[in-house]
Amino acid sequence: MKKLWQKDGSKLNPEVEAFETGGDLLLDQRLIKYDCLGSIAHAKMLHRIGILSKEELSQLLAGLTKILQLYKQGKFNMEMGDEDMHTKIEDYLTGKYGEVGGKIHTGRSRNDQILTAVRLYCKDQLESIEKELDILIGSFTKFFKKYGSIKMPGFTHMQKAMPSSIAIWSGGFIESLQDDKKTLKNAADINNQSPLGSAAGYGVPLKLDRIYTAKLLGFARVQNNPLYCQNSKGKIEAVILASLVNILQTINKFASDVMLFTTTEFQYFKTSSSVRTGSSIMPQKKNLDLAELLRSKVHVVLGNYTQIVSMSGNLISGYNRDLQDTKKPLLESLEITLNSVKVTNILLNNLIPDKIALEASLTEEMYATERALNLVKKGMSFRKAYKTIKAEDL
Amino acid sequence: MKKLWQKDGSKLNPEVEAFETGGDLLLDQRLIKYDCLGSIAHAKMLHRIGILSKEELSQLLAGLTKILQLYKQGKFNMEMGDEDMHTKIEDYLTGKYGEVGGKIHTGRSRNDQILTAVRLYCKDQLESIEKELDILIGSFTKFFKKYGSIKMPGFTHMQKAMPSSIAIWSGGFIESLQDDKKTLKNAADINNQSPLGSAAGYGVPLKLDRIYTAKLLGFARVQNNPLYCQNSKGKIEAVILASLVNILQTINKFASDVMLFTTTEFQYFKTSSSVRTGSSIMPQKKNLDLAELLRSKVHVVLGNYTQIVSMSGNLISGYNRDLQDTKKPLLESLEITLNSVKVTNILLNNLIPDKIALEASLTEEMYATERALNLVKKGMSFRKAYKTIKAEDL
Amino acid sequence: MKKLWQKDGSKLNPEVEAFETGGDLLLDQRLIKYDCLGSIAHAKMLHRIGILSKEELSQLLAGLTKILQLYKQGKFNMEMGDEDMHTKIEDYLTGKYGEVGGKIHTGRSRNDQILTAVRLYCKDQLESIEKELDILIGSFTKFFKKYGSIKMPGFTHMQKAMPSSIAIWSGGFIESLQDDKKTLKNAADINNQSPLGSAAGYGVPLKLDRIYTAKLLGFARVQNNPLYCQNSKGKIEAVILASLVNILQTINKFASDVMLFTTTEFQYFKTSSSVRTGSSIMPQKKNLDLAELLRSKVHVVLGNYTQIVSMSGNLISGYNRDLQDTKKPLLESLEITLNSVKVTNILLNNLIPDKIALEASLTEEMYATERALNLVKKGMSFRKAYKTIKAEDL
Amino acid sequence: MKKLWQKDGSKLNPEVEAFETGGDLLLDQRLIKYDCLGSIAHAKMLHRIGILSKEELSQLLAGLTKILQLYKQGKFNMEMGDEDMHTKIEDYLTGKYGEVGGKIHTGRSRNDQILTAVRLYCKDQLESIEKELDILIGSFTKFFKKYGSIKMPGFTHMQKAMPSSIAIWSGGFIESLQDDKKTLKNAADINNQSPLGSAAGYGVPLKLDRIYTAKLLGFARVQNNPLYCQNSKGKIEAVILASLVNILQTINKFASDVMLFTTTEFQYFKTSSSVRTGSSIMPQKKNLDLAELLRSKVHVVLGNYTQIVSMSGNLISGYNRDLQDTKKPLLESLEITLNSVKVTNILLNNLIPDKIALEASLTEEMYATERALNLVKKGMSFRKAYKTIKAEDL
Repeated sequence: MKKLWQKDGSKLNPEVEAFETGGDLLLDQRLIKYDCLGSIAHAKMLHRIGILSKEELSQLLAGLTKILQLYKQGKFNMEMGDEDMHTKIEDYLTGKYGEVGGKIHTGRSRNDQILTAVRLYCKDQLESIEKELDILIGSFTKFFKKYGSIKMPGFTHMQKAMPSSIAIWSGGFIESLQDDKKTLKNAADINNQSPLGSAAGYGVPLKLDRIYTAKLLGFARVQNNPLYCQNSKGKIEAVILASLVNILQTINKFASDVMLFTTTEFQYFKTSSSVRTGSSIMPQKKNLDLAELLRSKVHVVLGNYTQIVSMSGNLISGYNRDLQDTKKPLLESLEITLNSVKVTNILLNNLIPDKIALEASLTEEMYATERALNLVKKGMSFRKAYKTIKAEDL
Repeated sequence: MKKLWQKDGSKLNPEVEAFETGGDLLLDQRLIKYDCLGSIAHAKMLHRIGILSKEELSQLLAGLTKILQLYKQGKFNMEMGDEDMHTKIEDYLTGKYGEVGGKIHTGRSRNDQILTAVRLYCKDQLESIEKELDILIGSFTKFFKKYGSIKMPGFTHMQKAMPSSIAIWSGGFIESLQDDKKTLKNAADINNQSPLGSAAGYGVPLKLDRIYTAKLLGFARVQNNPLYCQNSKGKIEAVILASLVNILQTINKFASDVMLFTTTEFQYFKTSSSVRTGSSIMPQKKNLDLAELLRSKVHVVLGNYTQIVSMSGNLISGYNRDLQDTKKPLLESLEITLNSVKVTNILLNNLIPDKIALEASLTEEMYATERALNLVKKGMSFRKAYKTIKAEDL
Repeated sequence: MKKLWQKDGSKLNPEVEAFETGGDLLLDQRLIKYDCLGSIAHAKMLHRIGILSKEELSQLLAGLTKILQLYKQGKFNMEMGDEDMHTKIEDYLTGKYGEVGGKIHTGRSRNDQILTAVRLYCKDQLESIEKELDILIGSFTKFFKKYGSIKMPGFTHMQKAMPSSIAIWSGGFIESLQDDKKTLKNAADINNQSPLGSAAGYGVPLKLDRIYTAKLLGFARVQNNPLYCQNSKGKIEAVILASLVNILQTINKFASDVMLFTTTEFQYFKTSSSVRTGSSIMPQKKNLDLAELLRSKVHVVLGNYTQIVSMSGNLISGYNRDLQDTKKPLLESLEITLNSVKVTNILLNNLIPDKIALEASLTEEMYATERALNLVKKGMSFRKAYKTIKAEDL
Repeated sequence: MKKLWQKDGSKLNPEVEAFETGGDLLLDQRLIKYDCLGSIAHAKMLHRIGILSKEELSQLLAGLTKILQLYKQGKFNMEMGDEDMHTKIEDYLTGKYGEVGGKIHTGRSRNDQILTAVRLYCKDQLESIEKELDILIGSFTKFFKKYGSIKMPGFTHMQKAMPSSIAIWSGGFIESLQDDKKTLKNAADINNQSPLGSAAGYGVPLKLDRIYTAKLLGFARVQNNPLYCQNSKGKIEAVILASLVNILQTINKFASDVMLFTTTEFQYFKTSSSVRTGSSIMPQKKNLDLAELLRSKVHVVLGNYTQIVSMSGNLISGYNRDLQDTKKPLLESLEITLNSVKVTNILLNNLIPDKIALEASLTEEMYATERALNLVKKGMSFRKAYKTIKAEDL
């Protein structure tokens, strides 16, 4: 397909084209809905400031609604040779409605268009993750209430250390997720500003009503400085990914515990067969792959974070095409985290503490500190009490 | 020095000891003040709940105040053979005041002690960084007001693109820093919870008044779950470092611009000689090393973030000594960021736009979009106007 | 599809299944060829050691060849519900050829099967990259010969420093790529060992002829220790990715230079229009997106490296399902690097030095060191000569 | 101290100076020896090509030897206000020997000087690491011979899977370290080229004999292209660190196993008290902190690798001061790895398998695959045999 900027005769080298757009078209495919929503808001605003007539607006809205419909039906698909979704949408509008299609890009650059679509996508995903976090916190709370009174060993240095309980163990995850939610909300807030109208990063000599489009799109505010709209690329993504890292750290800790505590040697928990898988060679095996694959996810998103921060360093202000490559780690990380929170909930709901095994594992030496503190209560200094108890074990 | 836990006769291999504590003692040296503050609060609380008599409290407070004094004078220094600062402080107290020294550790573990000291350190550093950010925002605002009206080229793909101005350029950094401040405040809030009283991660069978110590230490709240106090290690550090990464991303962008815009080919800005350095071989050179060394810092903290997140993955709940190695990247990153914000301010205050060079660089082709939009104002569709202007350049 | 290990009645939760296999099936799709090659070698070996009859071997070879054919025609595709390619292939064989299909897995685990397929894939890709590196070195050598004599400024601190030449500039990339090739060959060598026959990581009580399968598959040697076959997962990947990082660092340097040297302010090089793209809003622009997208790739692979090393840390010996998530960053990084080397070659072949601009930029102050050294030749100490020349500029 | 490039009257802002050199002086302190060795070789070469008289050479060699002596005695120390070690050394020579000191920098830049010192440092450290690896491989071999015949369970998914042995377990580490040694040698080879004589990155108009200095310094070859000497900064460091990552991955795996296998629940191994430490609060505890602190190191070096690769991206050819910040992660990583290999050896030498516990843990279900293969030997297809055995467990 001819590019927006191509004059007749000029031609981009096809290998270069494949390198530049290959994987990116698949990512655009997930963003088409948000690009249409951005265009709808932009068209309404262009009408409001007198650039589009009422009729032109109707045509464009009809066209964009049609694309949304086709998209939903799986019939509006990026193909190799397409430059990007923005061009494909403009071409569709021009093809079906004529000259008016050429008006949709007035006062806009693909630079602010892609920022807008990505922010809207993130907004949706972050809200979904927050909802799933609430569900997971709810499940941990139920677990806490149901099993909290069961005693279990507490570990330090991977060794049994002091008496603990399911209440302490599961309650820790609740507090952890609550902290994670705070940081997630901060990320959602940083993301919640409209870049639409910043054009290529320097505005345009037209009186665009940026507050109006921001409101139509549900953004909390306008990202005022047009150059910062570009310069925040790589930074807002980093804020979002860092918040996802926290969530996945909490999940990693839970999954790491579950992996250890379901070994034959520990047997602190049982899991239902609906969350276990088997081996192709060992008939007897039932593995908890789910916990392993949950454990790995924080590392995936850490790497994605590294990509984004590393990539956006040492670059001057303004649009740099390098940052197209932030799209993949961003979208991927949001999806991974959303799914991880969901299946962590499934894992938790299929986890049953083995009360007998847990309490049997509370062996006597774990009460050494308590015994020392009993001496303290009788007036001995702690360090002397500590040494007294320690000596008993000689 | 004998370790707290050593019985007579047992001995740690000296190479193992050096490996385990070597670099860590230098880090502890920076935390001694905060460990004393934590101990002062803990002692007051032990008195309040009846474990220390009034006299014992006085002795301990006198001892801890003395250590603070010696520390300030550079006379309380960690040495090879010391186990850690906690032990050194307890030993000092016992050495000078006898048995009462052995009471300071009642109801406490080095696990919650180090958490407390590190949190207090972070609290201080984060507040300092916030103050320096305000100063830097103030400087950018002055710069914006003084030079804002000067026109300059706006770049995309590192090529001149559209007319911009010092106002747009410098204003972008103001908004960026304001966003960074939000994320920094979130990090400060997550850090602002007291782990003191969580002991080894499972509490103790004593009625410690954790709200009281939290208040004495200026924490906003108690970190309630004792196991989460341990499990948040590696996570709170990650939240803090991610917020520092953002600040350093903004600084990196500024420094990258300054590096390009002060080349002979651009000459958009002049710098005063107090921020430039020379060459050992080339008599004519004056380099802006400062901007280069500012540019590098985001990468340093990114690597430190990677250390912390990677290190804390795949570990079970509770204290793991591995995470001692989070101390260095944490302390280093806070110091790097604090210093970077300070010297960015110096760089900015020594930067003068070259009005003549800037405006001369606004060449005609940069107004192509404006010309296209003039056609749009006369009723042409944008895409047609774009093509019309493009054709002129044939 | 029923899993190999499923008994009637047991059922994996479908969300869990999607989480565990979702993205992985797409990756398996790229490996099917190599899994079939591994199975062919394994079948031949089973015949050789008397476990398969001649007829059984013929049937299995016919089936595997058929799959390879279907695969090539795009007719053997992983679908949601499939467990993995290994199971799909075994099921196909059993479905078409009956009981003999159930023999292909004798003495084998999916653990060594996937290792084998991935190693073969890497072997192929590493060889392709090496070939493309040779082509690129060839192009740089041609460039060096054609334009080497043109003088150009050499930069330090992004400032003009001393006289240089196209020979020095382009020759630097040749030496860089030669070093990169060495490290790539080391990675290829580390990868070039056959894990087939290690089964689940502990061998099997059958006399498998591992040397025979290694030879059939073109491996340089057998990876002898069965547990190390598993434990090297995450490590061999790291060796490979680190070698790709080097190549992409060289390309990043080249692309960074090209980006700067093609700005209007520098104009050291011209590029042909077949490697440039346009803007959707600014009619006048022609951008070198290609160089930007080459610049970003080292950061992508750095992040992938981080994923792999971070993910494989703190895990015990033996198969851990976590490491399934190394597959994506590995395959992606190899493809990115291969494509990057190819299009770097295209960029280089479309780059023309602007002799006039380059030589005009060699301004007088760049000869200051030369002037100082002329004084040295007359007997002055270098430091005094340096100061003499420096003083002239007062 | 006055900088080499300072004219009277000009002054660097002291905060800027502290920012630029602060931490770096401590690193230079470790490199002084190597900088002197580089200067000795350079002086000899300057004499050989007729720039220094015999007497001048004697004076400089006397001075440099004196510095080496003072350094060894701890009397030649970098102090705040020093610019760097190169300047300090030149100043010392000039101060003690007059004008001849000003000749040592003839035909040299601090750019090639620091490269040379760092390469020599790395050369030494890499050789030491290789030696320690050989010692460690030796210890594993002894362990293998002494205990190899003891049976132990093999794990997959952290669950008991198939029968294994100490031979398989410890043998895996031997092969792993052998692979690591190969990659280390490749890194040592890439590092083993002399940058001396490349000056600021563009050579000098003097006939320096680079082959001669390379030989004097023990380098395998000259790094020919002067610009590549600079451009390889960040890349050679990356090659080195990637090779260290591999070693630390192997150590991490060993330490992870040891941590699990020494829990009360497993008790597969005992350790001697000389490698364990105690708790400040729990009298009964004996922890294996050493294994935890070994486990953490791969993550530290991974972060350092990230710093270096990220920092050196998106920068143009030639010296960039940013890369001064590669020095710390490089030196630190080499020291960490050297120490880690040493103490891993200590840990291994203090590890004793508990034969009774190990063999008792080989429970019956672990022989399920063997039982299936026994059916295979009687002619049943593997998949059918697998299902037969699986059904028994119903």
